[in-house]
Amino acid sequence: MTAPTIQWVDGSVHLIDQTLLPHTEEILEITSPAEMVNAIERLAIRGAPAIGVAGAYGVALAAVSVGIDTTEFEEAVDSLRNARPTAVNLARMVDRTAALRANGPERILEEAHAIREEELQASVAMGDLGADLILDLVGDRPIRAMTICNTGALATVERGTALSVIQTLHERDRLQEALPLETRPLLQGSRLTTWELQKMDAPFRLLVDSAGPFLLARGDVDVVLTGADRVAANGDTANKIGTFSIALGAAHAGVPFIVVAPESTVDANTATGSEIEIEDRGPSEVVGFGGTLTAPSGTPAINPAFDVTPVDLITALVTDGRVIRYDRGEGPQVPA
Amino acid sequence: MTAPTIQWVDGSVHLIDQTLLPHTEEILEITSPAEMVNAIERLAIRGAPAIGVAGAYGVALAAVSVGIDTTEFEEAVDSLRNARPTAVNLARMVDRTAALRANGPERILEEAHAIREEELQASVAMGDLGADLILDLVGDRPIRAMTICNTGALATVERGTALSVIQTLHERDRLQEALPLETRPLLQGSRLTTWELQKMDAPFRLLVDSAGPFLLARGDVDVVLTGADRVAANGDTANKIGTFSIALGAAHAGVPFIVVAPESTVDANTATGSEIEIEDRGPSEVVGFGGTLTAPSGTPAINPAFDVTPVDLITALVTDGRVIRYDRGEGPQVPA
Repeated sequence: MTAPTIQWVDGSVHLIDQTLLPHTEEILEITSPAEMVNAIERLAIRGAPAIGVAGAYGVALAAVSVGIDTTEFEEAVDSLRNARPTAVNLARMVDRTAALRANGPERILEEAHAIREEELQASVAMGDLGADLILDLVGDRPIRAMTICNTGALATVERGTALSVIQTLHERDRLQEALPLETRPLLQGSRLTTWELQKMDAPFRLLVDSAGPFLLARGDVDVVLTGADRVAANGDTANKIGTFSIALGAAHAGVPFIVVAPESTVDANTATGSEIEIEDRGPSEVVGFGGTLTAPSGTPAINPAFDVTPVDLITALVTDGRVIRYDRGEGPQVPA
Repeated sequence: MTAPTIQWVDGSVHLIDQTLLPHTEEILEITSPAEMVNAIERLAIRGAPAIGVAGAYGVALAAVSVGIDTTEFEEAVDSLRNARPTAVNLARMVDRTAALRANGPERILEEAHAIREEELQASVAMGDLGADLILDLVGDRPIRAMTICNTGALATVERGTALSVIQTLHERDRLQEALPLETRPLLQGSRLTTWELQKMDAPFRLLVDSAGPFLLARGDVDVVLTGADRVAANGDTANKIGTFSIALGAAHAGVPFIVVAPESTVDANTATGSEIEIEDRGPSEVVGFGGTLTAPSGTPAINPAFDVTPVDLITALVTDGRVIRYDRGEGPQVPA
């Protein structure tokens, strides 16, 4: 990858503007918390771990620009925390950095850097643990791995979550092909995951979301790998809309369905999936794509950005520290 | 609707060019079987019953233009029959009209007209039988009906199959809302079904395909209605890609899943779904969205146009003549 997804450069934050990929690679220079909120809201940066890092750097920008003893600082922290509701990482990393306000802006920035470094190390660990698990579950042979949305370097800092596992399989010469779903409405699979798979020189074929369950039924898939926006204490998992659909397909076909997410995504304060708020992003994303309107003007739409997959459809959760085998009755069991 | 989907006008066939909807309403004038094959192949006309009528009129055009005693006639019949492989109606209606070649072009045209009239009457019957069944299954109250692809007048001649049932519910003041799936890759739901629902002044909200199973799980849907491209003798059903996915979602949620298709769609010569050929339409439809290239250039793709839903996920089949309750162990049981 030419530029990192997100990094601190001389008092500002540099982001790849993901809304312009795959055709244009442009770096956004973020210099204020308001610009960071805007970048998160319009998905210039997205993916649960990446927006956690973005939120932390946003707090650092606030501390530097408006000072830590102002109501503007508190307002900036609030607006960063609420820029998107579903992923737990954002609120958690905003709170973790803001909690250090008494120690001054330097300490906040140091913490944001630490969060970024943790996410990077987590990606490497998830890749290894996930690849080991799959070769154990499926057998040590070339793997056809279906995935949804973008869970690669663009969603984290480097390598990613579910896509880190695919990259690790590829590096171990055990990837027959990746099968990314395009991921309507915003096409993160089509625009971003394909772009990352090309960069890592991995074999892949793209498909529309609704073809996922059929390919599973036809025997074209060995494993499904997804990220997570929030894992509840019982293992129910909120992730990109469509994840539940391929979980149903995987269960029907008897194919392992594996969630890959850092420990920071597990939310002990959310007992089950029914407590997870699902963001509705409004009709404009559904009635067209980019500048192209495909439905008649005035078409109303429902647009849940996420869905919840119940734990009984999930084989295992791979985090940066452990493998939790739901299929053997294990659970995240995180102390609150 | 301003113009009928397909009609014979003074020696040529007039079709609405469905590739241009919803923004442009243009009539194609088809004067040769080769033009008809092209119109069917590029989906200017689509929908199993509609392409059956188109195939029949194509044979009539062949009889008029090249005569019935020529090898060109046989070649035209062959190319019409094979213009698309999955829907049984096309081959069946081409064969039914071509079988009358000894009786001359006039008789062939008369038969094509009869096929068109049969499809029209069938739509009315399916609407009534389907609406009766739903109010019986779900209760006599406002219905939230999810549907996929386009199964309305544009897919038949008037009213349609699954969408005819939704129209009948609306006319009986029992439609709370229709929930059309956009139906990637070609967006028949977004482009065509919304356009038809607007014309019939029915309440609706559009959604991306992958949100279907989640809305079912959340309790937002009372019934799923789909058309069929081919119904096997055991009830397994080939339909637009994504149908299997919402059938899984409906079964998981305990929501009735009803296939609506004329008797002509039931194929006694196909024992089960595993015998149904699934057309792969190539990567170009998947890597873009309405004229916009959304994936990196050179992206490979899988593009099955249909999937097969096993009969054990289907509650009932509604045809123009009967209701077959799979949930009560009934089957199409058509004599070969």
